[in-house]
Amino acid sequence: MSGLTLALAQLNPCVGDIAGNMANVRASVRRAANAGANLVALPEMMTTGYPIEDLALRESFQRAAERAVQKLAADLEADGLGSITVILGTLGVSKSGKPFNQAAVIRHGRVEARYNKHHLPNYGVFDERRIFASGEDRCVLPVHDSTVGIVICEDMWQDGGPVSQMDDATIQLLVVLNGSPFEEGKGHVRRDLAARRARELEAPVAYVNMWGGQDDLVFDGHSFIVGADGRIVASSPGFADDLLLWTLPHADDTAQHGTIAPDTGDDEQVYAAIVTGLRDYVTKNGFHSVVLGVSGGIDSALTATIAADAVGGENVVGVSMPSSHSSEHSRDDAADLAERIGADYRVQPIAQIVAAFQDELALTGVSEENLQARVRGVILMAIANREGHLVIAPGNKSELATGYATIYDAGSIGGFAPLKDVDKSRVWELARWRNRMATARGEIEPIPLNSIDKPPSAELRPGQTDQDSLPPYALLDEVLDAYVEHAEGRAELLARGFDEAVVDRVLSLVDRAEWKRRQYPPGPKVTALAFGRDRRLPITSRWREPQE
Amino acid sequence: MSGLTLALAQLNPCVGDIAGNMANVRASVRRAANAGANLVALPEMMTTGYPIEDLALRESFQRAAERAVQKLAADLEADGLGSITVILGTLGVSKSGKPFNQAAVIRHGRVEARYNKHHLPNYGVFDERRIFASGEDRCVLPVHDSTVGIVICEDMWQDGGPVSQMDDATIQLLVVLNGSPFEEGKGHVRRDLAARRARELEAPVAYVNMWGGQDDLVFDGHSFIVGADGRIVASSPGFADDLLLWTLPHADDTAQHGTIAPDTGDDEQVYAAIVTGLRDYVTKNGFHSVVLGVSGGIDSALTATIAADAVGGENVVGVSMPSSHSSEHSRDDAADLAERIGADYRVQPIAQIVAAFQDELALTGVSEENLQARVRGVILMAIANREGHLVIAPGNKSELATGYATIYDAGSIGGFAPLKDVDKSRVWELARWRNRMATARGEIEPIPLNSIDKPPSAELRPGQTDQDSLPPYALLDEVLDAYVEHAEGRAELLARGFDEAVVDRVLSLVDRAEWKRRQYPPGPKVTALAFGRDRRLPITSRWREPQE
Repeated sequence: MSGLTLALAQLNPCVGDIAGNMANVRASVRRAANAGANLVALPEMMTTGYPIEDLALRESFQRAAERAVQKLAADLEADGLGSITVILGTLGVSKSGKPFNQAAVIRHGRVEARYNKHHLPNYGVFDERRIFASGEDRCVLPVHDSTVGIVICEDMWQDGGPVSQMDDATIQLLVVLNGSPFEEGKGHVRRDLAARRARELEAPVAYVNMWGGQDDLVFDGHSFIVGADGRIVASSPGFADDLLLWTLPHADDTAQHGTIAPDTGDDEQVYAAIVTGLRDYVTKNGFHSVVLGVSGGIDSALTATIAADAVGGENVVGVSMPSSHSSEHSRDDAADLAERIGADYRVQPIAQIVAAFQDELALTGVSEENLQARVRGVILMAIANREGHLVIAPGNKSELATGYATIYDAGSIGGFAPLKDVDKSRVWELARWRNRMATARGEIEPIPLNSIDKPPSAELRPGQTDQDSLPPYALLDEVLDAYVEHAEGRAELLARGFDEAVVDRVLSLVDRAEWKRRQYPPGPKVTALAFGRDRRLPITSRWREPQE
Repeated sequence: MSGLTLALAQLNPCVGDIAGNMANVRASVRRAANAGANLVALPEMMTTGYPIEDLALRESFQRAAERAVQKLAADLEADGLGSITVILGTLGVSKSGKPFNQAAVIRHGRVEARYNKHHLPNYGVFDERRIFASGEDRCVLPVHDSTVGIVICEDMWQDGGPVSQMDDATIQLLVVLNGSPFEEGKGHVRRDLAARRARELEAPVAYVNMWGGQDDLVFDGHSFIVGADGRIVASSPGFADDLLLWTLPHADDTAQHGTIAPDTGDDEQVYAAIVTGLRDYVTKNGFHSVVLGVSGGIDSALTATIAADAVGGENVVGVSMPSSHSSEHSRDDAADLAERIGADYRVQPIAQIVAAFQDELALTGVSEENLQARVRGVILMAIANREGHLVIAPGNKSELATGYATIYDAGSIGGFAPLKDVDKSRVWELARWRNRMATARGEIEPIPLNSIDKPPSAELRPGQTDQDSLPPYALLDEVLDAYVEHAEGRAELLARGFDEAVVDRVLSLVDRAEWKRRQYPPGPKVTALAFGRDRRLPITSRWREPQE
């Protein structure tokens, strides 16, 4: 008999859409069977989507997941696919009612085996010890002419975990089901780790990951298989459905390569992650179009371009809301952007509305600036209410870190914030990268050069620039990277050579802005540490980094 | 020698204010010594405040906590109090750098022993497995003429935990340090549990709890001591500093009672919890005054009254913002309320501002209603910006559950939402209770009867009432209690006899409003399950309770 042919089905599940997810699984198994696969592996928690948070604790949800797995087994048998071995991530339940993060092995019309995830991540964005019980048994079973071991995601990352338990089981293949969120640079880490496990086990490792956006997480796919020597023998592209096929070599044969997806750069991956996160937030929540304020600045220009790439330029409404302080070039740049990306462009002046508020309130200074910003927020919400768009917020991570934006302004209201985890320096880089990509493809550059080149300004008072209130972005973003992403203390920051006054100013801004961050819309995590559930700090806190 | 005299120091720490917290500890130890105490017990994480979330992971913060403990030991010795045994909750660190939730025993100018919490709660509002390592050793030590065991909070709750390990240690007293958040009815549960542990150990149990507000949690104090027979021998009041003294009886003596605080009812406790939560949010964040919209309705009337009780009526700004749909009685009721509570009352009509928006946007229907609501939000933020008040949001739990309020309106913007965990039925009950209390004290009833008696209405269109869009509140709140607080599924709700159409409507409203709840300000948890970190659900979810 010929060697075991394995198919990794890289799919995009939707949380809670159990019927839809299972329809995708069933179709994938059929395609895999037609391609000659004996074994089909699907991502972690494919049945339910991931992460499901406290839905895991609901008995009605647990019952629905289990019914769906049983139905899938029967459906595949009815489809004539009962001889295929299907390994599927799902929500399991112990006899005493505890939920498990589970892999179900389906064959011959029934669930032949179950594996419960041992290592439950409870750091960063993960709360798995809150909702799951740990498994204790390993899972090794014969498939076709081979012996296959199964683990789930974090299990592979832990030394001394269930993978080590396979040492004496002489497996010919390790299958790892994953729901591994994207962050920049993580692909290499996964592959290096899988290669190490493969060499330890002297067996190939097949890593199948989901893709798609779920609130503030994006799963990137990038499924792959490494041979027993740790080298890549097959890989899937990121951010797309894929069915990756590979046949295990016979004992002394050399491994044949399957399809290998081309490598992509970090800018391309981060951009694709944000587009995916936005597109899935829009579509999975039943929207068809988005609206945002376009100021002529770089944040809204990049956000609008991402939106056009996500849902089509014709489904993007860009609203220019000039005030008496808005420059002529701002309006021109906003109009230029909208034309380039094919957005529905509107101009909605705010002067009369601001004047009506001012007749009553007579605000000055920062209060007056904030008023203008919030009037724009109200206009966007009104247009969204009237026409059914999702409002998206173009605020970036540097702004969110320092609390520079006015809360409830057009940069921070709405349902989703695509640039929430992208600092200002990276905003410029991504904008330049997107324009270069357009040029390479022979397309019009979407982002006006003016928007990239001019000094950033909120234009809430005459001649204002961001650098009136903040350190230069290149410096600010370096300090933020050290303080926020790497959680370094004041002493460590000073030891790196940052100016003391800058450090104290930035730390104070970051610490005081926590209340604003709590009310910010979700946005896709693309770095090692995003604001939100990745970084949980009290609002009320008198802690200030001391002069040690 | 006379028996061991124990003092429980019930204090209100502030997160991150290590110096301030330790100054309170030092003063309490002096007072306790003056009263003859040999042993002073202080709450869990007294050094740092609680919960500190990811601050626990910062090395600079860990170092500061440890320095403070060492300094306290030296200070007490210098104060001539070195012979007192002080048991203090703090942030410890293992040799390998892992943070512990720790009790430090200070005596003779040094830390004589440390106990690390074994059982780390990782459910409900707690994430302790995220930030702490588990302790493994028990802590039993001689104090004066007795042997004392120490545990921390959750350790007492777990059968088979470190309390059971004390069985063979023949302790004469168990001291439990707590940071136990308030929820209605929890006091009895704590006391019953402590009584059970006392009988198991055949020794008194001293339970010391912190009090005060920290973001969305309120700690209620209510420290107490039960004798070896499980009966209360001393207790502290809720929501106040206290030093509770009690002397252990000699072997065959009957236990003497210490001070016993009078029991208080549930309404009084819930009201005090909300007042404490708001007061501490205001003062710990450096504010002195609050501003809110007062509509003449019950939510804003109760919220304003709570604010007056928290920070003084003279520090409450109530802004009436009538529209063309506002009834005359609404304005009268708002003015009446403000006069009763001594608030700074202002009238800020919105008709001209709404007209300016409408000249540009020509909104109708719900979009027009939402516009009026959001204009009020902008006005409140402007007044707060101009004058430095904290904006508070009067929205209630029923509204938040169903998404009935307009996002970014005057009921849902700002820094703190006192009624966030109080459903509408309870809002009325608390209002009536507060008025009765005023009458009993011979004071003016703060809440106008009209505000209590009239049908609730947002007054965003002529003749509107809440019941045009929602089931009657008495019914709605029953369904919400079952679905949200008790996490029952659709099948369970129907089995309770609720009407199917009502159930489906309420579940759909709740499920679709998650995105609004994520952007809501924090508010004090007073029930068994509050929105926020107590109930973590995805925004993007196609899960709908099935017809099983």
